[in-house]
Amino acid sequence: MNSSNPAPDVQVSAPETNDQMTIIVFSGDLDKALAAFVIANGALAMDTKVTMFFAFWGLNVLRKENAAAPAKDFLSTMFGWMMPKGANRLKLSKMNMGGMGTRMMKFVMRRKKVYSLPQLIETAQASGVRFVACTMSMDVMGITKEELLDGVELGGVATFIGDASQSKSTLFI
Amino acid sequence: MNSSNPAPDVQVSAPETNDQMTIIVFSGDLDKALAAFVIANGALAMDTKVTMFFAFWGLNVLRKENAAAPAKDFLSTMFGWMMPKGANRLKLSKMNMGGMGTRMMKFVMRRKKVYSLPQLIETAQASGVRFVACTMSMDVMGITKEELLDGVELGGVATFIGDASQSKSTLFI
Amino acid sequence: MNSSNPAPDVQVSAPETNDQMTIIVFSGDLDKALAAFVIANGALAMDTKVTMFFAFWGLNVLRKENAAAPAKDFLSTMFGWMMPKGANRLKLSKMNMGGMGTRMMKFVMRRKKVYSLPQLIETAQASGVRFVACTMSMDVMGITKEELLDGVELGGVATFIGDASQSKSTLFI
Repeated sequence: MNSSNPAPDVQVSAPETNDQMTIIVFSGDLDKALAAFVIANGALAMDTKVTMFFAFWGLNVLRKENAAAPAKDFLSTMFGWMMPKGANRLKLSKMNMGGMGTRMMKFVMRRKKVYSLPQLIETAQASGVRFVACTMSMDVMGITKEELLDGVELGGVATFIGDASQSKSTLFI
Repeated sequence: MNSSNPAPDVQVSAPETNDQMTIIVFSGDLDKALAAFVIANGALAMDTKVTMFFAFWGLNVLRKENAAAPAKDFLSTMFGWMMPKGANRLKLSKMNMGGMGTRMMKFVMRRKKVYSLPQLIETAQASGVRFVACTMSMDVMGITKEELLDGVELGGVATFIGDASQSKSTLFI
Repeated sequence: MNSSNPAPDVQVSAPETNDQMTIIVFSGDLDKALAAFVIANGALAMDTKVTMFFAFWGLNVLRKENAAAPAKDFLSTMFGWMMPKGANRLKLSKMNMGGMGTRMMKFVMRRKKVYSLPQLIETAQASGVRFVACTMSMDVMGITKEELLDGVELGGVATFIGDASQSKSTLFI
């Protein structure tokens, strides 16, 4: 059940505790992020509770495009400058071809009326998918909470293991 | 239980409803496709029902080598021309070295009498692994049903979520 | 429950059979190996039994740095020479930049007092995470048992399927 429907009065015979999915978004590639959010939104539409756990490169998916950069040490500034700032800046894992492949893919998706990544993210968040950013990754990469989308929770590996132990499926993307 | 053995008369004490596995083949890399099919065939041999869901680059694994190309628009023709046409044309994700690494790997596999990817695919399909091609990916990449191996089903994200919800393990490869 | 605590006398009300996780370490990238071991150690700390199954490039994570190279044929020697020898030699999947990115990442991790990959591996093994090396991958890549860390078990796809069928979560990394 998703969070917009907190008190369903229908009784489902199948075990209810299985209606949960956990997705680790480790990758910061456009194509894999698209897959993760298509799956998350699809699962939610089928009454599956979804938690997305963003670690390592996946944190880039959640970065705000124009967040004021907080004061950081040299290495964090370097990392922050080199990594893509948010969903609009991600690239394909293959056939990026200096950006041309990525632009082609986005163009085709618009023409086919497929949701863009920012639209998928917005839909997911609005519909109640939980976004959890991995604090250890944030620490190592020097990414602060202010640089991430509003409403993102922070959590560690224990949060993830706890969610996975409640989930029917756990995907590492 | 696999489809070639539909009515086993042995009673297994372990919960039978868990004997299902769903594999998303997202990658079009030779090494990852090999892993996916080794796992699928292995699971099937152990009476686990397997559905493989091919999305994005993974669609290339299912492309026929010599399918007559249907009339397509410019971008789809471009994509189709640039992406590998079928299991024989996939490359290693690492150490491809302009094709040399991939050829070496195939050579070693032949010498060690390990099944090639086309053989693994044929075995999987013949033994009852379900192949589902993701329609959204086909649409975006301009790949048509005629270009894919015979017997491949079409499905969307709902098909995948439905399968995953029945599966003991769901892998994203 | 982990192996250092083999006979717990507390009764847990939650289903005990779910406390198991299987992780396929397919990748030989430093960042993905780190993720795998952080998850494994985290799960173990939460009384989840963990099996890590190392296949393909993932075998490189387990290679000893200074193992005496056994006599091998030409191709195996080539593969062995080109692939990284152990956890200290792995590279980032992105932003490696000729090794500079990888060095930066290791430097930051040290400064932040985050465990290094060799430390995570040692902790996992000491705490009772099972390491299984995929024999088919070893055969194809020409890697022998002597080249791998002590205490690694050998297993095939059947071993993996068996573990996955007992696991609440199975991850492909």
